[in-house]
Amino acid sequence: MPLKTREEYIESLRKLKLNLWMFGERVESPVDHPIIFPSMNAVAMTYELARQPEYLDLMTAISHLTGKRISRFTHIFQSREDLLQKVRRQRVIGQKTACCYQRCVGMDALNALYMTTYEIDEKYGTEYHERLKKFLIYVQENDLVSDGAMTDPKGDRSRRPHEQADPDLYMHVVERRADGIVVRGAKAHQTGFVNSHEVIVMPTISMTEKDRDYALSFAVPTDTPGIVIIYGRQSCDTRKLEGSEIDVGNSMFGGQESLVVFDNVFVPNERIFMNGETDFVGMLVERFAGHHRPSYACKAGVGDVLIGAAALAAKYIGVDKSSHVRDKLIEMTHLNETMYACAVACSSEGVPTKSGAYLIDLLISNVCKQNVTRFPYEIARIAEDIAGGLVVTAPSEKDFRSPNVGHYVEKYLKGIPSVKTEARLRVLRLIEHLTLGSGAVGYRTESMHGAGSPQGQRIMIGRLGDFDFKMELAKVIAKIKD
Amino acid sequence: MPLKTREEYIESLRKLKLNLWMFGERVESPVDHPIIFPSMNAVAMTYELARQPEYLDLMTAISHLTGKRISRFTHIFQSREDLLQKVRRQRVIGQKTACCYQRCVGMDALNALYMTTYEIDEKYGTEYHERLKKFLIYVQENDLVSDGAMTDPKGDRSRRPHEQADPDLYMHVVERRADGIVVRGAKAHQTGFVNSHEVIVMPTISMTEKDRDYALSFAVPTDTPGIVIIYGRQSCDTRKLEGSEIDVGNSMFGGQESLVVFDNVFVPNERIFMNGETDFVGMLVERFAGHHRPSYACKAGVGDVLIGAAALAAKYIGVDKSSHVRDKLIEMTHLNETMYACAVACSSEGVPTKSGAYLIDLLISNVCKQNVTRFPYEIARIAEDIAGGLVVTAPSEKDFRSPNVGHYVEKYLKGIPSVKTEARLRVLRLIEHLTLGSGAVGYRTESMHGAGSPQGQRIMIGRLGDFDFKMELAKVIAKIKD
Amino acid sequence: MPLKTREEYIESLRKLKLNLWMFGERVESPVDHPIIFPSMNAVAMTYELARQPEYLDLMTAISHLTGKRISRFTHIFQSREDLLQKVRRQRVIGQKTACCYQRCVGMDALNALYMTTYEIDEKYGTEYHERLKKFLIYVQENDLVSDGAMTDPKGDRSRRPHEQADPDLYMHVVERRADGIVVRGAKAHQTGFVNSHEVIVMPTISMTEKDRDYALSFAVPTDTPGIVIIYGRQSCDTRKLEGSEIDVGNSMFGGQESLVVFDNVFVPNERIFMNGETDFVGMLVERFAGHHRPSYACKAGVGDVLIGAAALAAKYIGVDKSSHVRDKLIEMTHLNETMYACAVACSSEGVPTKSGAYLIDLLISNVCKQNVTRFPYEIARIAEDIAGGLVVTAPSEKDFRSPNVGHYVEKYLKGIPSVKTEARLRVLRLIEHLTLGSGAVGYRTESMHGAGSPQGQRIMIGRLGDFDFKMELAKVIAKIKD
Amino acid sequence: MPLKTREEYIESLRKLKLNLWMFGERVESPVDHPIIFPSMNAVAMTYELARQPEYLDLMTAISHLTGKRISRFTHIFQSREDLLQKVRRQRVIGQKTACCYQRCVGMDALNALYMTTYEIDEKYGTEYHERLKKFLIYVQENDLVSDGAMTDPKGDRSRRPHEQADPDLYMHVVERRADGIVVRGAKAHQTGFVNSHEVIVMPTISMTEKDRDYALSFAVPTDTPGIVIIYGRQSCDTRKLEGSEIDVGNSMFGGQESLVVFDNVFVPNERIFMNGETDFVGMLVERFAGHHRPSYACKAGVGDVLIGAAALAAKYIGVDKSSHVRDKLIEMTHLNETMYACAVACSSEGVPTKSGAYLIDLLISNVCKQNVTRFPYEIARIAEDIAGGLVVTAPSEKDFRSPNVGHYVEKYLKGIPSVKTEARLRVLRLIEHLTLGSGAVGYRTESMHGAGSPQGQRIMIGRLGDFDFKMELAKVIAKIKD
Repeated sequence: MPLKTREEYIESLRKLKLNLWMFGERVESPVDHPIIFPSMNAVAMTYELARQPEYLDLMTAISHLTGKRISRFTHIFQSREDLLQKVRRQRVIGQKTACCYQRCVGMDALNALYMTTYEIDEKYGTEYHERLKKFLIYVQENDLVSDGAMTDPKGDRSRRPHEQADPDLYMHVVERRADGIVVRGAKAHQTGFVNSHEVIVMPTISMTEKDRDYALSFAVPTDTPGIVIIYGRQSCDTRKLEGSEIDVGNSMFGGQESLVVFDNVFVPNERIFMNGETDFVGMLVERFAGHHRPSYACKAGVGDVLIGAAALAAKYIGVDKSSHVRDKLIEMTHLNETMYACAVACSSEGVPTKSGAYLIDLLISNVCKQNVTRFPYEIARIAEDIAGGLVVTAPSEKDFRSPNVGHYVEKYLKGIPSVKTEARLRVLRLIEHLTLGSGAVGYRTESMHGAGSPQGQRIMIGRLGDFDFKMELAKVIAKIKD
Repeated sequence: MPLKTREEYIESLRKLKLNLWMFGERVESPVDHPIIFPSMNAVAMTYELARQPEYLDLMTAISHLTGKRISRFTHIFQSREDLLQKVRRQRVIGQKTACCYQRCVGMDALNALYMTTYEIDEKYGTEYHERLKKFLIYVQENDLVSDGAMTDPKGDRSRRPHEQADPDLYMHVVERRADGIVVRGAKAHQTGFVNSHEVIVMPTISMTEKDRDYALSFAVPTDTPGIVIIYGRQSCDTRKLEGSEIDVGNSMFGGQESLVVFDNVFVPNERIFMNGETDFVGMLVERFAGHHRPSYACKAGVGDVLIGAAALAAKYIGVDKSSHVRDKLIEMTHLNETMYACAVACSSEGVPTKSGAYLIDLLISNVCKQNVTRFPYEIARIAEDIAGGLVVTAPSEKDFRSPNVGHYVEKYLKGIPSVKTEARLRVLRLIEHLTLGSGAVGYRTESMHGAGSPQGQRIMIGRLGDFDFKMELAKVIAKIKD
Repeated sequence: MPLKTREEYIESLRKLKLNLWMFGERVESPVDHPIIFPSMNAVAMTYELARQPEYLDLMTAISHLTGKRISRFTHIFQSREDLLQKVRRQRVIGQKTACCYQRCVGMDALNALYMTTYEIDEKYGTEYHERLKKFLIYVQENDLVSDGAMTDPKGDRSRRPHEQADPDLYMHVVERRADGIVVRGAKAHQTGFVNSHEVIVMPTISMTEKDRDYALSFAVPTDTPGIVIIYGRQSCDTRKLEGSEIDVGNSMFGGQESLVVFDNVFVPNERIFMNGETDFVGMLVERFAGHHRPSYACKAGVGDVLIGAAALAAKYIGVDKSSHVRDKLIEMTHLNETMYACAVACSSEGVPTKSGAYLIDLLISNVCKQNVTRFPYEIARIAEDIAGGLVVTAPSEKDFRSPNVGHYVEKYLKGIPSVKTEARLRVLRLIEHLTLGSGAVGYRTESMHGAGSPQGQRIMIGRLGDFDFKMELAKVIAKIKD
Repeated sequence: MPLKTREEYIESLRKLKLNLWMFGERVESPVDHPIIFPSMNAVAMTYELARQPEYLDLMTAISHLTGKRISRFTHIFQSREDLLQKVRRQRVIGQKTACCYQRCVGMDALNALYMTTYEIDEKYGTEYHERLKKFLIYVQENDLVSDGAMTDPKGDRSRRPHEQADPDLYMHVVERRADGIVVRGAKAHQTGFVNSHEVIVMPTISMTEKDRDYALSFAVPTDTPGIVIIYGRQSCDTRKLEGSEIDVGNSMFGGQESLVVFDNVFVPNERIFMNGETDFVGMLVERFAGHHRPSYACKAGVGDVLIGAAALAAKYIGVDKSSHVRDKLIEMTHLNETMYACAVACSSEGVPTKSGAYLIDLLISNVCKQNVTRFPYEIARIAEDIAGGLVVTAPSEKDFRSPNVGHYVEKYLKGIPSVKTEARLRVLRLIEHLTLGSGAVGYRTESMHGAGSPQGQRIMIGRLGDFDFKMELAKVIAKIKD
């Protein structure tokens, strides 16, 4: 069984020679860096759960290529049930980490490429699909984490890739060799790169003939020469350096983001999955986004934690039975389940593609994500409402532990007599973390822009909404004849 | 094959001797009454589609009791796929009728009773389940429409059934005989009664020991002596009497409501499915509501028609490419699909009960309906926005046809040159019908209160939301030890 | 004192020879027509209140032209307090009629013309302002109702006036004579025309040089030869013909709409207030809309009635103390007061124009109306929620009065014992009227489109929002130097 | 003229001997502490503007007690215009600081006490009003900042003050002496305390006879012995210690919060303004809250900055003309102006109290604040939408300045060619600051809980909404006779 243990995963990361920079300094050992550790630990949870018998079905599947039991994060969806297991799994791990565990993007990339390379080959007689299958088997056999890298920096949004003042603002081929290609560009907003073994690069928007050098997909190891990673700042990032378990809110898990530069990176032929087929770029982008949007079912898991935290905060001050508090918890739940339901629905209505792999219902997938760009914000707002002002005014753990003023904090921030002040502080810090701190980056902003910004979904909903069909329905009812 | 044709259905209705009153007069032939006809015709559509080959799978199933092909409206859900087919079917017929076609409530009642009588019998050794199966086979074999009757008038909402000043404000047993019981009471908001062959009565709220005489479920023919039907008024109801095809908006289909009085009605023993088992009332109500709430997937079908009508109205005046109009159509679609997705999801996550019949996921079912109490209102609001003021200021068809002023209407209400004024009037009347007229009763108010008012769903969401579990999740993340 | 009594007003209407059509028939005596009466009666209320001492300040003012006490509906705003009195008055009459009383549009037209003609004359040396003052004195002295007519039919919205296939789709000059002009076209959505003595015509959109013949403003009596009025249908309009006081919901007051055709109407020179000055059309339209948008403060008055009706409906079934019902009434109130507050604020921040007349704050005025396009819909939705399903399922008054079934209605629709069933029916019919019936046309759709559709306000908010200034604010804070 | 310069203000703060703790350490010189400086600097802006001629009317007024020109922050409202000038001023300073400048709370406290002490004295013959006037003159003459301290820690919210397990969880008298009283307790969420000369203490909720020792109002200098200040943590607080101007987003201004403990503090008689008059506590709380709620007009000023920042962010990547971006900026503006309009309206409808001082309209004031608990969240959400993902993924200033990787940041985060990458980084950091960082504490969470949490406003709206009056309106329209 090619399933790594948590420890094996961490060891495998240590072997990577990432060229990673943070605050102007090179980071030598990412897995041990206190700012990075929680995000690595969240990925590690996917390994840990996969080896627990109770999660066997949820976390693992039988490879349709090798017949071996593999992580579902490396699996190609063979059925609607596979699609449904994905969204259920996303939620469960979200509940256990309350953050982005980064591993779905590579899974969604593999699936989108699997079905698209099949159709490219069918049209052009290329061999991308076979290459991808080989890469896939390698990933499955070694239980690797792949980062899916789509978003180019894009520069001036009113111009196409080949029209940019700087041609590198979209990733492109700068040299073609017999054994491969050399590429240049960057990928922004890379959430899981630092904790990944491989990066799968895809183009970010539909392209025309003139963008041929930009119609590009490939995979390379994350420590390939020429790759430079610059770590992104997050709200409250340096709080993790202070050594306070309470103040960080979620001390074990967290997210991260980085800007990844490809400065003349060589890609060998066997790792190239698209190279100039501009007419398939739209399909690849749409399918990747289609798969990735319901992956945000994880936010329903994070939402479960935040609802629980709000309920605790209310209980700790004796208002949990108050009708308006209860109604707010119900509203949070309602919104959270609505998001989740959309993720379930687009999986339940999935369909097989030519390759045999299943694709979610694209319309509902986009509807799902559009709700994700709204509801976590409202859930967070209600959580802040229930939490009360202390969520942003409570003193530091250092003050709480201080021999000089700690007793004041203990005395005056006490809620109901049966609960310790520390418990109240902890739950408030968790709410702060998820609504304003580094957790909010994952829960709010990533919900907004991850897997495509809101307008991206609206364009798709407009395209898939089939207004012509609906106009015909109305004409029949109103007895309108043209 | 026991599937009635449309004509056979109408004939079978004619044989009923309903005691029906409208505007203070007895209605002799309901199926021919212009106010009632559209609602009957909507039910007839369920018969018509069931005999079309392309809808075979959607409209019919194999009875698990008889092995014969039957209408899915008389089928007991045997799988998740059966549950999914229900919501897909609901939408399709909604698209074709743009109204309530009334037949789901009986189906949901049969399913709720099927699984609940099984468990009553298991506990009490009663024989309700066998009785129900016999009744079910009768319904299947004769392809009957059953009205599901739940809502009692309820009088003073702050009092329980047995506490009401008038004991009849909840349906109850007034006499017990060897061969059956005599019941008295009324059921309000009966949408499909007038077009049904049978009525299945259920209690409306959870009950205590003292409400024993009210814990009651049974089925009788709709023309049983003692049953008096008083037709409800609807917005624009009498417009159907004017003979204007244009002004009614939807001239072929429509909804209706009635108050049904049971004035000492005799129920034979074999038609009694619950009689005093107060501890199962809650379960029956919850399961019926649980099944019935996602039945509102039909509103997504009506929504499709309304979206189409709004798109047409925009097209007819040349603004369909305008970015704000397009964005509004997208928002309507987004909300409509969100409702639908929730109905799909609660079906996709359905589970078998002890009886073998499948029950939807109760939490998502309630979430689904809660969205239905909100989104049609917003979709209708946007439709009115796009339609423009003419939707409520356009002259009557009589003025349009008038030799004196018709040419002014023709001239001044013309939109883009290529579209006839009449087409524009027709689509505006359809929008008026669905947002203000009798169609709005079905699309808006019924979406609000049908299958339970919003607060009913909130209570269920609160109960099923499992805040204790979520508080534990938060405690683990925040490392709170009690 | 030139203030007409209610009776004098009605008599003055009788003298008009309106060319009015409804359902294809000529209407001989509009004030006595049961469909028209309620709307006339609502205007009559403005006369009635003006003569009651307690409303002296609210309803009347001293004319700045004649020094006499006049109706505020014919007054030119001389101060912020005048602007504030307008919105307070609008709400009070809304509370007393629960409908559109039509008289504000003429007032807003007079004010917009007063300040704009002053500036046209200043630039072009024309004498429009003097003409308008004469007309104004005539209106004040005779206490007349003026209809403000702005909205042209507009045909293909993607084309300018002079580009339309039919040149009459915008009102224009078809002949110029020494003593005046002849005009042709139509004005749609005329709410108060039938109850008005005069009509003040204005152009409906900004114009360019090529639209010179369309840059037109004038006033003529409503029964001027060539004017043809075609009455618009409204939801439940014919219910007023049935003679049921209960079923109509609001038996005394109501709104109406009509399409008014100007088929070669002669306008004498002294009644022309703009004639070809295309560069002032935008200003006139903006100022009229600016004044008219906060006139929708009347909807806060209607909202007060609807909130009261919902509270009554809840009280009548014993749920008025229920926390969720109370919270819904609070939300309705919150939204209602927010609308009203915006109307107050744009008045409070009003500024004098060159003419001396005061203009509201244009940005807040548009914000006010934008909220009016949203909140009545949500208030109505909540009212339907509180009212319960009976609002659309209750039997007719004829059934309630029927010797055959009336006792059933009496018995089964009874709420708490101390309240008569009839009271409950009455309040539910009022809610139906305001959410679905003819009252909903005024409360919902007119709130949407009256004084300009939502997108119109958004364009103005975008123009007046001054993003350049705000970008500078952000640059200073972020220390960005260009 | 008793108006301090900015420098004089800072010097006056230096003279205070505050007992202030942060991260477990005593803070010796608060005005120089990099975490505290921005908040002090925001207060200093109120001094700076007061001395600029263009802001003379907005910032200063003539004292009704001394006839001298004073800061409006120490002024008692003498007219509606005074109330209006307050909300206008709040917005302007909000535009210039993009944060809470803390000085309104003391002003609102002085005003609430002024009118309430007058009425206490009238009833009880006490001399609180004279004492307050003396204190007021002292504050005016010395142009002092007063912190208004209302919120007690409250412990178990289901218990009244005297029922708490720890009696100190609400501030109370622990000793009564001839020359004054000794008090114990704490005040939470003190935003301006550290930058204030005086603190004005008020009770936090309505009280009964048994809470007599808690019915307490007084003023003392902020460095009175026994007062201990514990600084609250805020999102991204320590980023201010890093020395990066870019990364903090708003390097000059900011907010703060602290927990202030009163550990046996002596209050001399002349500084006591309420002492046991439990029947006036509700009035004082309501009036303070009433005045303070529209003070949140400042958030409209912060909103202006955020709208500007979002517009800049869009412009910097070339999408500012895109219809969906423009529509989002319009929506932000609409919401922002709605909040502001409510603040204007409650001022415009203000009324004089017995003391002569003006009180805002209490209903609209609560409606205003209720909107403030919603709209900044939605405005922030839209800002994050427009800003794009980079708002949470951009590298640190240190990376941007790094000789190793800075050129990559420069190259790849460039937007349109004409704008420097640094400008883009600066505006994104400002958006991050206001939506997630320490600015979000002020813009979002303080908008939620400052001046009372949402449910507090709803209770007031329910109380002031006068449902009885509204039910009567509905009865008249529906012709319901009891």
